[in-house]
Amino acid sequence: MELERQVEELRSLLGEAAVLTGAEDLSRYTRPYRGVPGPTPAVVRPADVDQVRAVVGWARRHRVRLLPQGANSGLAGASTPPPAGAHPAPVVVSLERLDREPMVDPVDRTAEVAAGTRLSRLNTAALPHGLVLPIDLGADPSLGGMVATNTGGARMLRHGDMRRHVLGVRAVTADADCTVVDERTTLRKHNVGPSLTQWFIGTSGAFGIVTDVVVDLGRLPAARACAWMIPRDAVAALETILLLERSYGRWLEAFEVLSAEALEAAVREVGDRGPFGSRPSPWLSALVEFSGGEESEEVLVGALDDLTSRSLISDAVVVPPVRAWAYRHAVTDGLQRSGTVLGFDVSVPRSHLPPFRDRVREAVASVAPQAIVADFGHWGDGGIHCNVVLPAGVTVEAPIRVALDEAVIGTACAEFGGSFSAEHGVGPRNAGWWTSTTGIGTRSLVAGLKQVFDPLGVLGHPGLPYRWEPGSS
Amino acid sequence: MELERQVEELRSLLGEAAVLTGAEDLSRYTRPYRGVPGPTPAVVRPADVDQVRAVVGWARRHRVRLLPQGANSGLAGASTPPPAGAHPAPVVVSLERLDREPMVDPVDRTAEVAAGTRLSRLNTAALPHGLVLPIDLGADPSLGGMVATNTGGARMLRHGDMRRHVLGVRAVTADADCTVVDERTTLRKHNVGPSLTQWFIGTSGAFGIVTDVVVDLGRLPAARACAWMIPRDAVAALETILLLERSYGRWLEAFEVLSAEALEAAVREVGDRGPFGSRPSPWLSALVEFSGGEESEEVLVGALDDLTSRSLISDAVVVPPVRAWAYRHAVTDGLQRSGTVLGFDVSVPRSHLPPFRDRVREAVASVAPQAIVADFGHWGDGGIHCNVVLPAGVTVEAPIRVALDEAVIGTACAEFGGSFSAEHGVGPRNAGWWTSTTGIGTRSLVAGLKQVFDPLGVLGHPGLPYRWEPGSS
Repeated sequence: MELERQVEELRSLLGEAAVLTGAEDLSRYTRPYRGVPGPTPAVVRPADVDQVRAVVGWARRHRVRLLPQGANSGLAGASTPPPAGAHPAPVVVSLERLDREPMVDPVDRTAEVAAGTRLSRLNTAALPHGLVLPIDLGADPSLGGMVATNTGGARMLRHGDMRRHVLGVRAVTADADCTVVDERTTLRKHNVGPSLTQWFIGTSGAFGIVTDVVVDLGRLPAARACAWMIPRDAVAALETILLLERSYGRWLEAFEVLSAEALEAAVREVGDRGPFGSRPSPWLSALVEFSGGEESEEVLVGALDDLTSRSLISDAVVVPPVRAWAYRHAVTDGLQRSGTVLGFDVSVPRSHLPPFRDRVREAVASVAPQAIVADFGHWGDGGIHCNVVLPAGVTVEAPIRVALDEAVIGTACAEFGGSFSAEHGVGPRNAGWWTSTTGIGTRSLVAGLKQVFDPLGVLGHPGLPYRWEPGSS
Repeated sequence: MELERQVEELRSLLGEAAVLTGAEDLSRYTRPYRGVPGPTPAVVRPADVDQVRAVVGWARRHRVRLLPQGANSGLAGASTPPPAGAHPAPVVVSLERLDREPMVDPVDRTAEVAAGTRLSRLNTAALPHGLVLPIDLGADPSLGGMVATNTGGARMLRHGDMRRHVLGVRAVTADADCTVVDERTTLRKHNVGPSLTQWFIGTSGAFGIVTDVVVDLGRLPAARACAWMIPRDAVAALETILLLERSYGRWLEAFEVLSAEALEAAVREVGDRGPFGSRPSPWLSALVEFSGGEESEEVLVGALDDLTSRSLISDAVVVPPVRAWAYRHAVTDGLQRSGTVLGFDVSVPRSHLPPFRDRVREAVASVAPQAIVADFGHWGDGGIHCNVVLPAGVTVEAPIRVALDEAVIGTACAEFGGSFSAEHGVGPRNAGWWTSTTGIGTRSLVAGLKQVFDPLGVLGHPGLPYRWEPGSS
């Protein structure tokens, strides 16, 4: 059979251990964090940049589509194969063997990291130098995946997204030469015209396979302090952010807001009485983190007094950071256990967060009256995870799913100038929104760029929208 | 005459006032900040995005090259026409009429600004809200120019470069449709795949003409405090940066190091006794700025005591910020007055700054024994302006210029993993270094991208290296 011969060729190019085809071996690579697994004929695991190049050359020769995969912790569906039948099954390129000890430079405050290396390994290597890659999220992604999805996270308010930390990457494109773009540098001032690196950030592997990443590291603060607080209302939560930025901006590290529904699910998951103990559960609550010197907690307590005296908050409690974040990180699993969850990762200008919440609740109720909107997110940046929870066991039929998409994402984009993807990036889950919210001129330019990097269309999830297929609009 | 008819067509498209052809009118647009003016048949001044589009369409029809120009304060030579004879003279597109009151949003901490609006106007509009675009430099550039050159500056150590502040741009490309790419957004969490905006940042107008910019603003600190200090030696200057980052990172805003030659020129220019008064003039000095709350000066004094007790510095004096920066900003003019200056804007990993300074002095001395190296720059980021000063009135012949290029830029790039352009960007002055330090595969991809955005090659300075001319290597 044709495909078998092709896989044999791959084995001869990369060695036996590099190519997996057994059903059990494959399942680990084909199951997404959320959603339905899709089929793949093989998983190939290159061990260095030359092997990545060999794989890309092989894919070009045989017109086989490659699906690059990091730690498979993405939430937009771009790292696992599509369901059977939708497209020819792609070959998964796992980058997990591109993993070696990160090269941390404590004087330049940088690290060069292989694409398959996990964030936790980088931070373990950086720790003895008092350094960290300050991108904070629940999962433990690979550095290559963080580039491909332009990871944001809970501390983006202070530290920015992955794009802000990437100094340069090495990547393999799928042009006729399988060009290795090598822009690795530890320089911060390196203003030398076109940065191809930017083209690999946030583009889900559709323009090249990242093999190495050089990042700018931050300093670990001497201390952190956290509090949970109850804003008077949603507008007061917004005013609280502004006051904190104005008067305590150098300490403010994160500001997360949870709906009552989200906090309740988190507390159930943690299994204690919650951050506010026996006091009444709030309808809206916020987690704030200050970081800096040893005085951080003292400054935070002063800030809470300040907020209380201005009647912006009705209650506040200082909670040790690990415990404080445990509630925040338990939200997703807690909701998952409470029903059927549809996750929406949207953003609006933060000034519009209070009316947006109200409008989304109305819009969802009109589509699915039995649904609960359990929203939570990074209010400091305008990011809000609008998780819609339906009773456990309910099957969400396609028309309802589409109507809920419209109720949440459509409301964010059309009524509030918001975004269909705040931080998860683009994948088959939200590719349609990219197409409908991007001008035809821009889409045509993107298709032209895709043609430069990948003229045969062998790179990335087949559900990504960047290639202009003949006959598509 | 053909050209006259074409210019007439431009007048009929945009109106009389939009097209300048008189020699006196033109001179303001053809003289660079440094270097030799070049000829242009006309300066066209579109007043809105539709007029920019009309100009690009006109240029495509007649195969005339357009040279976008902001405030003409760039230092890489990309904003004024090349010397007569080198290339067909381009038409200058001045964006100065794309200037209107910036739209500042104090809650979202953003501003939408027209490309021709100056940084000073933006900051005047942001001031009442306690906001600022925290990119600090001697000139007063336009926002479009800041995008096109990816401006860095003296506070990049804390605030990053222009790329970090741009949320999205609107730009006109020169593809067959003269596509208007509109990625204006005030969203911070907007992770929606390919960002064409990135392709207009730092690329000197070669891929599109930016008409509008949306930026993320920072908060103006309540207070600033500055000191001039004398590091024990170059290695101690580096250790000082590390200590300040480690223990005072939340206050550190800038760290500039000046050679004796640079400080002497600055003090002569300011016309007083200098920051250290009657004390001996140092061989190396540093300007440090802390910013934050009212306690900033107190914290700075504590930091200076700390540095003194560790013998990293031999002297320090707190100087009011305006006076402190006056010396720093007087360096360029002061040197200009002391002889014939060749400016080199390079960077190396900051860990390599001390040996790099020594090597550059050796290399320059072997080429031009009468030259003085007056280096100064942004040590916190590894940026260093290696200005080479020759006796006044000396004409620098081309072979000496080439040899000095090699002595400074060549040393930075080849021996220290440095950059030929730290912050000024790419223009005809350093285009050759782009070609020689960029791999052929990457250059080929860049040429492919240029083909997508500007297939006829009508955009940007003709000395930019991104187009693959038939027969070039």
